[in-house]
Order: sequence, then C-alpha cells, then structure tokens
Amino acid sequence: MRNDSRAFDQLRPLRIERHFTRAAAGSVLIQMGRTTVLCTAAVEPGVPPWLAGSGRGWVTAEYAMLPGSTSPRKPRERGGKVDGRTSEIQRLVGRSLHAVVDMPALGERSIVIDCDVLEADGGTRTASVNGAFVALVDALRSIGDQWPEPNRLPLSDSVAAVSVGMVDGALLLDLDYAEDSRAQIDLNVVVAGCGRFIEVQGTGERSTFSLDELTAMLACAQRGWAAITAAQRAALGNDWPF
Amino acid sequence: MRNDSRAFDQLRPLRIERHFTRAAAGSVLIQMGRTTVLCTAAVEPGVPPWLAGSGRGWVTAEYAMLPGSTSPRKPRERGGKVDGRTSEIQRLVGRSLHAVVDMPALGERSIVIDCDVLEADGGTRTASVNGAFVALVDALRSIGDQWPEPNRLPLSDSVAAVSVGMVDGALLLDLDYAEDSRAQIDLNVVVAGCGRFIEVQGTGERSTFSLDELTAMLACAQRGWAAITAAQRAALGNDWPF
Amino acid sequence: MRNDSRAFDQLRPLRIERHFTRAAAGSVLIQMGRTTVLCTAAVEPGVPPWLAGSGRGWVTAEYAMLPGSTSPRKPRERGGKVDGRTSEIQRLVGRSLHAVVDMPALGERSIVIDCDVLEADGGTRTASVNGAFVALVDALRSIGDQWPEPNRLPLSDSVAAVSVGMVDGALLLDLDYAEDSRAQIDLNVVVAGCGRFIEVQGTGERSTFSLDELTAMLACAQRGWAAITAAQRAALGNDWPF
Amino acid sequence: MRNDSRAFDQLRPLRIERHFTRAAAGSVLIQMGRTTVLCTAAVEPGVPPWLAGSGRGWVTAEYAMLPGSTSPRKPRERGGKVDGRTSEIQRLVGRSLHAVVDMPALGERSIVIDCDVLEADGGTRTASVNGAFVALVDALRSIGDQWPEPNRLPLSDSVAAVSVGMVDGALLLDLDYAEDSRAQIDLNVVVAGCGRFIEVQGTGERSTFSLDELTAMLACAQRGWAAITAAQRAALGNDWPF
Amino acid sequence: MRNDSRAFDQLRPLRIERHFTRAAAGSVLIQMGRTTVLCTAAVEPGVPPWLAGSGRGWVTAEYAMLPGSTSPRKPRERGGKVDGRTSEIQRLVGRSLHAVVDMPALGERSIVIDCDVLEADGGTRTASVNGAFVALVDALRSIGDQWPEPNRLPLSDSVAAVSVGMVDGALLLDLDYAEDSRAQIDLNVVVAGCGRFIEVQGTGERSTFSLDELTAMLACAQRGWAAITAAQRAALGNDWPF
Amino acid sequence: MRNDSRAFDQLRPLRIERHFTRAAAGSVLIQMGRTTVLCTAAVEPGVPPWLAGSGRGWVTAEYAMLPGSTSPRKPRERGGKVDGRTSEIQRLVGRSLHAVVDMPALGERSIVIDCDVLEADGGTRTASVNGAFVALVDALRSIGDQWPEPNRLPLSDSVAAVSVGMVDGALLLDLDYAEDSRAQIDLNVVVAGCGRFIEVQGTGERSTFSLDELTAMLACAQRGWAAITAAQRAALGNDWPF
Repeated sequence: MRNDSRAFDQLRPLRIERHFTRAAAGSVLIQMGRTTVLCTAAVEPGVPPWLAGSGRGWVTAEYAMLPGSTSPRKPRERGGKVDGRTSEIQRLVGRSLHAVVDMPALGERSIVIDCDVLEADGGTRTASVNGAFVALVDALRSIGDQWPEPNRLPLSDSVAAVSVGMVDGALLLDLDYAEDSRAQIDLNVVVAGCGRFIEVQGTGERSTFSLDELTAMLACAQRGWAAITAAQRAALGNDWPF
Repeated sequence: MRNDSRAFDQLRPLRIERHFTRAAAGSVLIQMGRTTVLCTAAVEPGVPPWLAGSGRGWVTAEYAMLPGSTSPRKPRERGGKVDGRTSEIQRLVGRSLHAVVDMPALGERSIVIDCDVLEADGGTRTASVNGAFVALVDALRSIGDQWPEPNRLPLSDSVAAVSVGMVDGALLLDLDYAEDSRAQIDLNVVVAGCGRFIEVQGTGERSTFSLDELTAMLACAQRGWAAITAAQRAALGNDWPF
Repeated sequence: MRNDSRAFDQLRPLRIERHFTRAAAGSVLIQMGRTTVLCTAAVEPGVPPWLAGSGRGWVTAEYAMLPGSTSPRKPRERGGKVDGRTSEIQRLVGRSLHAVVDMPALGERSIVIDCDVLEADGGTRTASVNGAFVALVDALRSIGDQWPEPNRLPLSDSVAAVSVGMVDGALLLDLDYAEDSRAQIDLNVVVAGCGRFIEVQGTGERSTFSLDELTAMLACAQRGWAAITAAQRAALGNDWPF
Repeated sequence: MRNDSRAFDQLRPLRIERHFTRAAAGSVLIQMGRTTVLCTAAVEPGVPPWLAGSGRGWVTAEYAMLPGSTSPRKPRERGGKVDGRTSEIQRLVGRSLHAVVDMPALGERSIVIDCDVLEADGGTRTASVNGAFVALVDALRSIGDQWPEPNRLPLSDSVAAVSVGMVDGALLLDLDYAEDSRAQIDLNVVVAGCGRFIEVQGTGERSTFSLDELTAMLACAQRGWAAITAAQRAALGNDWPF
Repeated sequence: MRNDSRAFDQLRPLRIERHFTRAAAGSVLIQMGRTTVLCTAAVEPGVPPWLAGSGRGWVTAEYAMLPGSTSPRKPRERGGKVDGRTSEIQRLVGRSLHAVVDMPALGERSIVIDCDVLEADGGTRTASVNGAFVALVDALRSIGDQWPEPNRLPLSDSVAAVSVGMVDGALLLDLDYAEDSRAQIDLNVVVAGCGRFIEVQGTGERSTFSLDELTAMLACAQRGWAAITAAQRAALGNDWPF
Repeated sequence: MRNDSRAFDQLRPLRIERHFTRAAAGSVLIQMGRTTVLCTAAVEPGVPPWLAGSGRGWVTAEYAMLPGSTSPRKPRERGGKVDGRTSEIQRLVGRSLHAVVDMPALGERSIVIDCDVLEADGGTRTASVNGAFVALVDALRSIGDQWPEPNRLPLSDSVAAVSVGMVDGALLLDLDYAEDSRAQIDLNVVVAGCGRFIEVQGTGERSTFSLDELTAMLACAQRGWAAITAAQRAALGNDWPF
C-alpha cells in the first residue's frame, strides 16, 4: 500500500492550468500530487550565434526550485553556479522538446521555457517536461499562423515524461519524494505521443539491475505516459496541435 | 481616467490566498491587479553568527522575479550578482518586518521570507511587503505557542505598503507598470497598523518636489494602506494576531 | 550636548578640495568631520547601448569604501558581489545627479563619478553626493564650451544631501558614526539648490514615526543643505555654473 | 565500413597504463583509440560534513578537458561555472563507482577521482569510468591492508562503461567523435563485472527509438563491456581485487 | 633630458605624509611625482589557519587602483577576479615586508597593509612598498610596547624599492608612466636598509639584456634606494625603529 | 650531496616528447625529473581586439596544475579566480615567448599555449617555458610556409628557463620540490639561445642577498640553460628553426 493509497501503477492526481499568468506567451501551472511547477514559455527574436543565418529555430529550457518549495528551505542558487542536478534537468527538458520541434519550420526565433518549481514532492523533472510541452504549444500559437504549412504548428508529436522506481522490491509509478528517497532503482522515461522513446535514464541508486528488471520498469512507465498524454490533450482541448 | 477605470485614489483588486503551497510554514499568493507574488516564510533554527548567544531572533527576506514574470522575458540572476534593485527591495522587505517583530520574544530562531514574483505589473515591492506580513504570521503560528506571553505572537503590529505617484500632474494610488513608467515622482511608504511610518521613500524620477507635494502624496497613501491592512486582517480571520 | 560640542542643528566642519589628483577630469576631496571621500569624475565617449542614437548623455556613479577607511578594517569587495548597502548608495548618487543634468544638452557622452571613501565616520552617502556634484561641474568644464547654450553647462541646478536623525528623542543634524548607531529614526534628503526635494528617505530603524516627526526632521535638514550649498558655491568660486 | 576499418561491434584499441605519474595514489592513463584520459585517485582523510560520524566513506569524481584536447582549442572553465556536460559526466563517474564501493568498510575517508582528458575523440565519459575504476583500485591498495576483511578491498565488483550508437541505421560500438556527431541515437551503459546494469542512458538525439531498438543496442553494448572488463583485469594483474 | 628636467639618476619629488586618515593604525600618503598611494595598515587579532598555534605572526598586503587614478578611467575590479598585474604587485609588497618582520616576535597577530593608488603615473608598485614600510612601523607602534625586547619593534631592517629602465639606450631612475611605456628593459629592485637585495626583477620588455647591462642597472638603482631610505627615516623621525 | 645524487650544477634528467597528443598543433610532454608538463599550442585565427587591424600577431599562455599533480591533491581552480602564483607563471611564459616571436611576420593570428602540469616536483614554471618553446615551433610549422621570408619561421631565437637556489649556503641548479622548500634565495632566469637575458627574477625567500651572490647564481644558471637549449635542439632535430 502506498502512503496515499494509490495503486502501484497509478499516477498522482494530475492538474494542468493554462494561462496561469499573462506576461509570458505560454504559462502553465502543472501539479502532480503536491509537486507544483510553473512552466512559462517566451518567444524571442533571433537564435544563438552558432545558428544565425541557418534558417533554423532554437528551443531551450531553464529549471529552478523556489526556496520555499522544500522543507527545510532550499537556498537560492545565486553564487554564480548552477548545481549539477539543476543542469541535468534543464538539459533533459530542452532535449525532450528538441525531439518534437521542427526547427527549420520554426525559423530563426527562440523559445525559452522556464520551469520554476513552486513545491517539490518528487518528480519535478517529469512534471517540468509535461508542463513545458503545453506551454510550448501556447507559445507557438501566440506567434500566429506563420508556419510553412497553414494551421500546422512546427511540431511532430507531443512529449510526456514519467518516473518508475523499484522500492522494496515493488515497481512503483510516479514516485513522490518519500518513495524516491527509498528507491533502489530509478527510471525516468520521456516518450513521444506515438509511444517511441526520446530518453531512457535508468540508475541503480542502491542496487544494480538486470535486463528483465529494466523491461518490467519500461512496461510500468507505459501506463503512466498514456495517461499524461491524455491529460495534456484534455488541457489543450481544441488547441491540441495534431 | 486610469487605464483600468480606477479612481485616482483606488487600489487595484487585491487578493490574498494563504497556504498556496504546503512545504513552507507560511505560503501566501498575493495579487494586486496583475502583479502576483508568492511569499513563503520558513522557520530555521539558529541565527546569524553576530547574534549567536544574544537570545534574539532574526528576520530576513529575499526577492526575485521569475523569468516569465515579464515580457520580454527577464534573464535569471545566475551570474553571482544580485542587481541593485533586487537588493534594495529585499532590504526594504526585511526592514519593514523588523520594525514589528519582537526579536527577544522570537528567541534564537530565524524567519526567512522569500518573495518570488510570478507576474510583474508594477508595485512588486509593495505587494511583497503586504504578502510577507501574512506569511510571517503563518510561520510564527507554525512554531506553536512557545512565546513568552501565552497566545501572543512576538509581533507588535501589522505592516502594509503602498505606492503613490505623480503622473501628468495627478496623484495616483497603487501604480501599475504603465503608470509607474510615466511617473514624475514616486513615493513608497511602509506603515504599521497603527498608522505610524516605518519607511518613507520619495524619489523625483523626472522632477523635484516640494514639501506640500510630499504631504499630499502621504495623504493619498493613507487611503491605500488602510484598505490593505483590512484585507490582511480578512485573510487572516481568526488568526489575526492582535 | 553632542560628543564634538556641536549644536543639534549644526553641520560638522566641511572642507572641499578640488583638483586633489590630476588624472581625472574632476577630483574632489570632501571632508565632513572625519568622514573623507575622494570623488572623481571621468568623461567617457559614448553612452550605454540602450541610449545609443538617442542624442542623450548619461551619468552614473560608483561607491566604495577603502579597506582602511574603518576600524576594524573592512574587507575589499572582490568576491564578484556588490553588497546591498553599496548598491543603494551608488544608485542614490546617480539618481541625485540625474535630476539636475540636462541629458540632451550633454549629448552622447557619459560622466562616470567614483566616490571612494578614504575614512568613514557616518554620512558617507551624503558626503558622496555633495562632493560628486562639485566633481561633476569640473568634469563638465573639462569638455570645453561645446554646449547648446554658450557659457552654460548642461546643469539645471546644484545638488546637496544631508542626514537628520532622531537620537534619544532629539533631532540631530549630520550624524557621525556614533550618533548614527544610536538613532531611532534616520532621514536622508537630497535637495536641489532651489530647495525642492530630489529624494527623501526616512527609515524607522528602531522606531516608527509620525507625520509631525517627519515634518520636523525635514525642517532640521533644511538648515544643513543651505550651508552645504554655500560651501559648494565657495569651493567652485567663479566656476559656479549658475 | 567504419573509418578505422573496425567491425561494427568492435572496440577501439584499448590501452591502460598504471602509475603514469607518482604523486597521486592511483594514476592511470587510459586510451580508447585517440581518446586519452589521465585518471588519478587521491585518498583524503575525512568525509563531507553530512557523513561525519557515520562511519561511512565517500567517493567523488571530477572531470575536465584540457584546452589542448580538442581542435579548435577548448577554452578553460575558469569562469566559476562548471558547464552542464561536465557536471553530468562527473556525476556519472561518481555514481558508477559508488555502486561498487562498500562505504562502511571504506571508513571515514574520501577517495577523489580526477579524470582529465588529454585528447578527446569521442567516448571520454566511458573512458573516464573505465580508467577511474583502475585508479580507484590502486588508491585503495595504497591505504594498506586495514580493511574489515583481511586481503579484501572494500569493493563488491568491477565497473566498465561503453557507448553504442545508431548511425545511418547501423548499430556501432564505442563511437569515435566523427561517428558520435552523426548518431541518431546514443546509448551509454555502465555495467558491473557481474553483468548487471549500474546506469543506462539512451538519448534520441535526432530520432526516437522503440523498445526493440533499445534491446538491440543493449545487446551490442554487452560485447564491449566484456572486453573492457578483461582489459582492466589484465592491467591490474595480481592486483585484481576479486 | 627627461620630460620633467630630472637628471637620469634622480628620483621624482618624494613626499611622505603620516596619519593621513585616523581609522587605520598606520595611514601614509606617499607621493613620488604625481604617483600617489594611500598605504594603510591594520592590526588584526589572530593569523591564517595554517599558522594558528605556531606563535608566529603574519603580514599580508593588498593593492588596488582607484578608478579615477588613471585617464581614461580604469574600471573597478568587481568581477570576482583579481587581474594578474594586481596579484603580482600585492604579492611583491607582502614578500618585501616579510623579509624584515620578525614573525615570532610579532606573535599571533596579523598586519594587513592596503595600498590604494589615488593617482597612477608609473612606479605604483615601488611607491607602495615604500609607503607600506612606514605604515607598517606606525601599525606596530600602535600595538604598544609588548615586544620580547623592550623598545624594539619586531623589525630587522627598513625596506625600499625603486625602478630603473633602459629607455632609448639611457639608464633612467624612477620612471614615470611616459618613460615606462617606452622602456626596452625594466628593472624593479627591493632593498633592505643594509643594502642587500630582497627582490630583483628584470624584464626585457622589448629587448634582451646582458649581464653587464644588468649590473649597470643595479648600480643606478642604488642611488635611488639610498634617497628613499633617507626620506622614510625623515618621515618617521624619532619613531625610526632602529 | 643532493637527494638524487646530482652534482650541485647538474640538471635533472630532461625528456622532451613531441606529438604527445594529436588534436593540438603543437603537443609536447616535457619531464625534468619527476616534474611533468604537457604543453600544447593551438593556432587561432584573429587577434585580441586591441591588435585588430595592426597586422601583428599574438602569443599568450595559460598554466594550470592538474589536481592529481601533487600530494595532497590540489583542488581545481574552478571558483572563477586564478590564484596569484598561477597568474604569475602564465604571464612569465607569455612574456618569454613574446621576446622571440616576430609579431608582424606572424600576422593577425594567435598562438595559445597551454601548460598543464601532470606532476609537480619543483620547477614547473621553467619546465613550462622550455616545453612551450618546442610546442610553439610545432604550431608555427603547422601553419605551412606562409612567412614573409621563405623557410624562415617568425622566430628570432630559442628560449630556455632554469632555476637556481641557495640552499644551506650551497648554490643548486634546477631545484626539485624538497630543495625549493628549503631555499633561502630563489632565482629564475629566462634566456634566449644567444645567451642574453629575457627575465631575471631573484627573491630572498628567507634571506637577503648581495650583488656578488646574485652574480654567482647567474653563472650557475648558465650551465643549465645551455644544456636545456641543446635538448630542445635535439628534440626538434631537422625542425630546429634557425
């Protein structure tokens, strides 16, 4: 029995609120259980120097946890250094979106996604990916219909992410912080709407794992991402881009 | 006529939501018009080195704007430097709370207030002070009833802040960003619930001002802070500490 | 009785020495009692990027305390961070000068004022403003007579600053460090030569204050700034620009 | 045909030289093709603060590329920031070794592994893991025979890492830089000597991938890690700790 | 003929003013021609960690140029980096004083010397050494007469520094900035009062040099340091410690 | 007797290996006894801004010690600061090469030399200079024969560096770390192949020194640099550029 009475392969309650703020082109508050992330997406003219003149667009992501998102309070990263975990997560969010954006169709503009964690209770990286995709859609829509193909955003598919962990011998979907702290093996997967993998990251935190165990964890993850993709589709409604 | 049809001496719609997140002891989402600030308050054991052994407590504040809080996007302060405006605001919030906290009664513990701006449309510093006071009360209540005087938090009074500006010759209360950008004179006041000043900061941005003009601006501010204090009291309900 | 036998509303001995060094276009050593600040002013071609092409000039200020200016020694700010107090003071000096410089007449050049405190005994921010104005005049004069109006520097008025404090119930003008450390209320005002305010900053360090108290402090300040303006005028002699 | 005539599932020439320098307790120069990494391991007394008094040891790793390791030259990371890729690699090396070190048996001392890339031609992270394990063994041996079980280093198994990539539809083992730059899918696996996974990281750089493709890549990787483990064992000879 | 009509082997006018400010225990304004340096010396309790418990004292120096000391203005070193030249000079000043301080007699206290250049016209490093010695004497005297030998400061000798340059084939003593910029060879020597060298630094900036040329430059330097030592003795008067 | 049985005026075994790695245009592993430095040289298009358009080239050097080069391990310089000693050495290497490069003939390109110490046992700065010269030659050769004079690299002479120290009254050539730690006087000289000095740096670490002692140390150094120059010539063989 999990501490919130969920089934082993059940997601936490998932809530996606679009237009949470109005300054950013995309602004999505996503909650997976108590984990709460504000994902905003801004459209900026131009691209980084190494892409200038290429005709291609650019998508990048930043991630941060507010000091009040954890207990005890987490000191602000103001020392000029981004810690390793932060860097890994923002690179993961960026790569996940790269996989589905049609950069030549986007043209020489940049989409900057900010994932700011308001409350952290495990799974902030997967919540960030899930909310970032919805914010990205809203940001692309804010540009108007300037795409090579009319009425078709420069996106090939949706993106969803979910975690699976092996805790005390059991496979658990969508771990909260208490579960994550006890996990022997930790797997994060990012999947396109079509079901093909974008990223698979399995780590034996306190244990090694066999190919069979990896396969079982991937199967468990599949139940999660299907539900997340459905929630993204529901949140976007008629704005679902496919 | 103001761009949102307000009277010259009218506040923007003010909304205070307590317990917005649960990890921090105090967590208040305050909105003044579109300006939205998440104020969290954490209780930490101990005090800075220069107070150790004094028996006195400590209150400090940090302030930051999320990248998505403005358009265009505001780059994150990750370069190891806190810019001058940020530093001024967090010092102002800290001083404002210092004025009403009974540090010896607080004892050797620290309250850290974080004001993170989710959306910025003018007046983020006054919204931060107003929300920070409510978060502070919730943080003090989370400690339990360990105070020198039973049922009496170590607070002498409430704190509210409001801005007044001279725009095109008219005195305006609680400026939004568009108004603030055009103001000739800018006044921020922080006031205790009893009506005495904690801080008065008047700046002639594009003009100098006389003593009469200063007096008129202070009178206009008074209508604002009374309404803000009432809203804080309403939000705290039975938890109002006085 | 004050510790140096001054009257409550009397300035400390004020000394202004121009041309203290020769490398900078303006170089003023100002002493208010033991507080000693070297204010230099440099003329640089061009303006910051956001003003380029506007035809307007730019004035900015930096402030620092030498390590030997205090006892115990103050460590150098070499860690890549400017502390909050430093940032507040240099922003105050910059705003104070902005208020009287005719930026379009200055044209696309920058004046950079450096206020380096050689000895600190309270009131370094007001001494910095007072010396900076004189250095600014000398820097503008070094440019030659290239102004839109012949023989008229691009200045609308002079600038002076002074502090007033409430110490043990008495209003004191121009506080030294020992007095400042005991002040319940601290007021800094920056005033144009015409007597109108540029900046009013009142802070209840250990006490709140009423409108009547604020008004009394402003009246006390007035006796100070008149004397400072006279001293600036005496130091500049025939170079007084008005 | 690969550009160096290797078979698809063949490693590059692998060379491991122990005792390359003498100051560090472990010092291993590892070459996989042209990729050359100097892995040194130092034993330091004590552990980080959060482990003090726990009786447990600590293993950590740092990674850097020398400026001359690439063409064009790679600027030194001296700006106070560790870039995201560097941080990911050093965290990977650290986690990989954590998985096989018996921390309680190690006792309250730290092993610091430094992986400095002298020449980079793809696969620097896998070469770092492979060399780091050998340097770790030498560092542990330098401590003498103070372990809980006589003649048994506090290690549960060996560690090896290898990359597999999908390039133009073909699965290639141990990619060099030219191949890596063209890979659609990139997989890095870290494996214990017993064949169980410590880490699996698959990334669709330019393509997504199915479960079948993931399984095929893992099978290809297996041929690589067996050969690497054999080379580590040969390099250590009688010092092989199992 | 030199641009200020000096003889080739003549120092610039040298002025040493003690007690320039009062906060620091030693405070010396030294001028060599237009080059002006404020050297302050503070006494701090304790020593750096690596000397704690050794019974030995510590002397260290910092050096900085004020922004207004040069034309064009020199930006402040606030980026968290000390540039190479600054670091070299402050290390030189520190080593020079180390050579004459009796560290065991000083006991576990630190003397921190700050050399802040108010105006720079060549030779700031030699002026810093020369002024630092006088400030050091005043700082040691401020401690009172607590030395192992009564009435004997923990100093073995005085310290003086001077530059010599080869400019257009001529040997020049005590170069100003214009001369220094044209020098082919540049020599700085630090000498104890007894005439023995503490430091000899000869650099062929635009030319190499022979042993005979080095010997001639050292002979020229000797005329300078004798005069500087005499000026230090005159400034200290009855406080000359030997 | 020295601890490795060398004569007082004998160099440590000197080994120079060119083409140690292949990514950099010049790559030289130099060993003087146990001191081991990898010197790489890269050719970059363009010059720093202040030389742009001058037609002149640029040579610069960086120096670093790998963490594993010493025991105990030396922490990486990642804090955004280059320490004083590092800065001094890289400036010395740069100046030494500047003295022999014909910058106009080099043309508007930059040579960047990196000296990374793999093992440190005294004399890393002299080994860096000696290896850097050989790497510089290889880098210049990699450019092809584009020089103003056919078959003549833009070099006027070779460069060698060596240390001499006074240890317990004896003059020792090419000190190792143990000797250097005990030296009363320390002399580093950089010499051109023709025997003229480029740099002479003598420091009385624990003692002052007379002119006679300086002269004797320079004579001792001469025996060292002749041998080093010969080793550089042998390593370059037919590529010796003179």
